[in-house]
Amino acid sequence: MDELPGALGTSASLALRLGQAIFSIASLLFMCLDVEFYSYTAFCFLVTIMGLVIPWSLTLALVDVYSVFFKPPSRQLGVMSVIVIGDWVLSFLSLAAACSTASVSEILITSSSFCSAELCSRYQLSAAMTFLAWFLSLASSLFNLWLLLLCEVYMSWL
Amino acid sequence: MDELPGALGTSASLALRLGQAIFSIASLLFMCLDVEFYSYTAFCFLVTIMGLVIPWSLTLALVDVYSVFFKPPSRQLGVMSVIVIGDWVLSFLSLAAACSTASVSEILITSSSFCSAELCSRYQLSAAMTFLAWFLSLASSLFNLWLLLLCEVYMSWL
Repeated sequence: MDELPGALGTSASLALRLGQAIFSIASLLFMCLDVEFYSYTAFCFLVTIMGLVIPWSLTLALVDVYSVFFKPPSRQLGVMSVIVIGDWVLSFLSLAAACSTASVSEILITSSSFCSAELCSRYQLSAAMTFLAWFLSLASSLFNLWLLLLCEVYMSWL
Repeated sequence: MDELPGALGTSASLALRLGQAIFSIASLLFMCLDVEFYSYTAFCFLVTIMGLVIPWSLTLALVDVYSVFFKPPSRQLGVMSVIVIGDWVLSFLSLAAACSTASVSEILITSSSFCSAELCSRYQLSAAMTFLAWFLSLASSLFNLWLLLLCEVYMSWL
């Protein structure tokens, strides 16, 4: 069970978490720097969700660093459940934020009076970064769900 | 394994599938009837996805009806995998369509020149129906994923 790649405490998981954090930070920077994002609900939603995803990913990346370099993780069922539920919720919220941002920026581009070309392309870049963060987050949550189910099946059969 | 409620071939699964079909049809009707949805990409996306979800849910509802009333299902691993993958993909696409529609209709309401109050409320109702369909679709896919994982663990240990 320990060699499942991508589950909590492995180096693949560390790579996934770092990827999530990097893409989330990039998305937040594209959206926030020098842009009046707070006039649209969808963009505020994206900023809120990215503000949740970044500390979550960084915390779990730290846990992975500790597990990889110092001490193998003791995977308790309760802790794993919390991580899996948090991962799934944040993954769905990231997808929702990415889709909202993408569709709103598409509307803003077609009705071109609302934003300049440079501004709109930054909104789109932010949406693209959020999609990438969502994809990595989905991978993490699938791996952890698989580990959790394996743990539960073991526990129920022992 | 046979008594897992919500998995393929049970009456709970039949109820979930019928709910998905009903909410998807309601969403499609709110969006299409007497509304010029094709001028916005997000609304076209919603119509496309609902056009995929409705036949998928109805087909699986028929499978459930057959399983419940006539013959217990023979759950082959390949068939279950296809159903789980299809469920997950359609569930993510439904969520994406619902978020896009909700955020675009919110933009259209704030810049009120684009649509009348009645039209915008229909867009919002359509988004709400899609959210409900997504929620039921997520439940189905979680139950089927759980069944598939149990099957695979059994197979690998036998």
